Amino acid sequence: MIISFKEAVNELKSADGILILTHVNPDGDTLGSGYALLRALRKLGKKARLLCSDPINKKFSYLYEGIEDMDFEPSYIVSVDVAEIKLLGDTFGEKYGSRVNLAIDHHETSRRFAEKTYCEPDSASCCEIIYLIIKELGTEIDSDIACCIYTGCSTDTGCFKYSNVTPRTHRIAAELIEKGARHSRINEIMFDTKTMNSIMLERRCLESLEIMGAGKLAVITVTQAMLTECEVDKSALDAIKPLTRQIEGVEIGITVKEEKNGKTGISVRTSEKYDAAAICSDFGGGGHVRAAGCEFRDITPEKAKERITDYILNNIL
Amino acid sequence: MIISFKEAVNELKSADGILILTHVNPDGDTLGSGYALLRALRKLGKKARLLCSDPINKKFSYLYEGIEDMDFEPSYIVSVDVAEIKLLGDTFGEKYGSRVNLAIDHHETSRRFAEKTYCEPDSASCCEIIYLIIKELGTEIDSDIACCIYTGCSTDTGCFKYSNVTPRTHRIAAELIEKGARHSRINEIMFDTKTMNSIMLERRCLESLEIMGAGKLAVITVTQAMLTECEVDKSALDAIKPLTRQIEGVEIGITVKEEKNGKTGISVRTSEKYDAAAICSDFGGGGHVRAAGCEFRDITPEKAKERITDYILNNIL
Repeated sequence: MIISFKEAVNELKSADGILILTHVNPDGDTLGSGYALLRALRKLGKKARLLCSDPINKKFSYLYEGIEDMDFEPSYIVSVDVAEIKLLGDTFGEKYGSRVNLAIDHHETSRRFAEKTYCEPDSASCCEIIYLIIKELGTEIDSDIACCIYTGCSTDTGCFKYSNVTPRTHRIAAELIEKGARHSRINEIMFDTKTMNSIMLERRCLESLEIMGAGKLAVITVTQAMLTECEVDKSALDAIKPLTRQIEGVEIGITVKEEKNGKTGISVRTSEKYDAAAICSDFGGGGHVRAAGCEFRDITPEKAKERITDYILNNIL
Repeated sequence: MIISFKEAVNELKSADGILILTHVNPDGDTLGSGYALLRALRKLGKKARLLCSDPINKKFSYLYEGIEDMDFEPSYIVSVDVAEIKLLGDTFGEKYGSRVNLAIDHHETSRRFAEKTYCEPDSASCCEIIYLIIKELGTEIDSDIACCIYTGCSTDTGCFKYSNVTPRTHRIAAELIEKGARHSRINEIMFDTKTMNSIMLERRCLESLEIMGAGKLAVITVTQAMLTECEVDKSALDAIKPLTRQIEGVEIGITVKEEKNGKTGISVRTSEKYDAAAICSDFGGGGHVRAAGCEFRDITPEKAKERITDYILNNIL
């Protein structure tokens, strides 16, 4: 059932023994939302705890600093920033997935899996919604809560860079800084800290960079050997994929990735002029207009690269 | 003479035939301030034009799009974001530098060279001040003016990332988006577009990366040959200098640069724990606490690197 903002606030007001669930591969928005809500609920004298099926990167440690562990059988379950049940992950999805009382979310693709759902697809982050909820709950927003909420506002917008930013995003950020959010330190941790290994991978990827189509097509190739050599996992690739499209004049950027199972994954990023999803759908893939993907089987990465680049050079550019 | 905000607004209200001067190596803040002011003054029916001693990068073309050229002998001269007279550059500094009526600035190091100065050192950008001035002048802020002002607000704060951001910065950004600033497109141009040559330089610089002092010291070396090979000028180095300090665990980042004249320039970036200016002052240089520089003469870049790294390893870390 879809409920209103006011109803969501009332649900939380009357609840106690609250378990907060975040999504897998936890990011700044789901964790910021969860820990901000946990801190606010505890300030209201309620029992609250947070669980995530995946381990939490230690760079987020300031979000839960000072929170003492509480163990109790939950009588009310809230998910934050979770668009569908499978994103709760195996561990806690199986245990609690069918018992979620309230889902608070901001994804356009949000699916109804909870008893009640409050979703604002126009909100740049889930943390924006949590901020408004906490204000309405009447809890004072202290600097710890402000840091949690600021984290989601900043990370889900690429530090206020993307098109999802609204005037409300900036106004909330202003209030959070006034309430003690350590904004520049948070941004330093989130945006200006790279591991040595991810820098090494970036170096190796730039070495593989090829420019075709009179500068309009850029291709980066990532092999399993490169990932092993740099000791990074798949997630380090997220920082690589946008690189091609950032090159001046490049309209289509491709990242060709050799997978472990003999497949080749293709990531396509496009400028406003081209449709990445359409390109990928011609190879059985899909995605968004400016970022999409597809997969090749039974051919070498070299051959897969040739197939996709030939197609783009002959039919698209 | 230092004047108040109100006095600065009154100066502009009564002026006409206004020449606006920006600083050399023009950035988003000086150009955004200048063109926003020019557009606002023309909307009030005044004659206004802008001059810069250096060429303007074409990525800023949207700032002056649609502005028709006006040639007139100025009867009032305003500088924007210019901290001292030499930053007006040779061409227009010599011609107009001694005749500036009003300097509008936000630098802490601002020097008095104009007849009247209005400076707000706590303002994250000069554009923030220009925004408040334009509002006070009573000009309607249209989307072109909003784009100009947003550009300075965003570029001078690393897209709202740095510690100079205040609640006011965010509140002004909110209003600018409401008035039609094309925020995500501007940020894409300013932050997510790299030239192929600057990417090549980054690749070569990462190849030179050395880690010392148990991971606390990172050193990048840039030679004249690298700059020639990548066909970039000195300004491309600005993107390189922060790289070292972004590596997880690195406390001090050094960029060693071979200069054309046989000298070696050293750039030092530090974490909160160390004082870059103090390190550099021991070699006759100086700067800020977290970003400073010094210079070596009559020794090779290799030797200069050895001198500074030995010093840091033995005395600082």
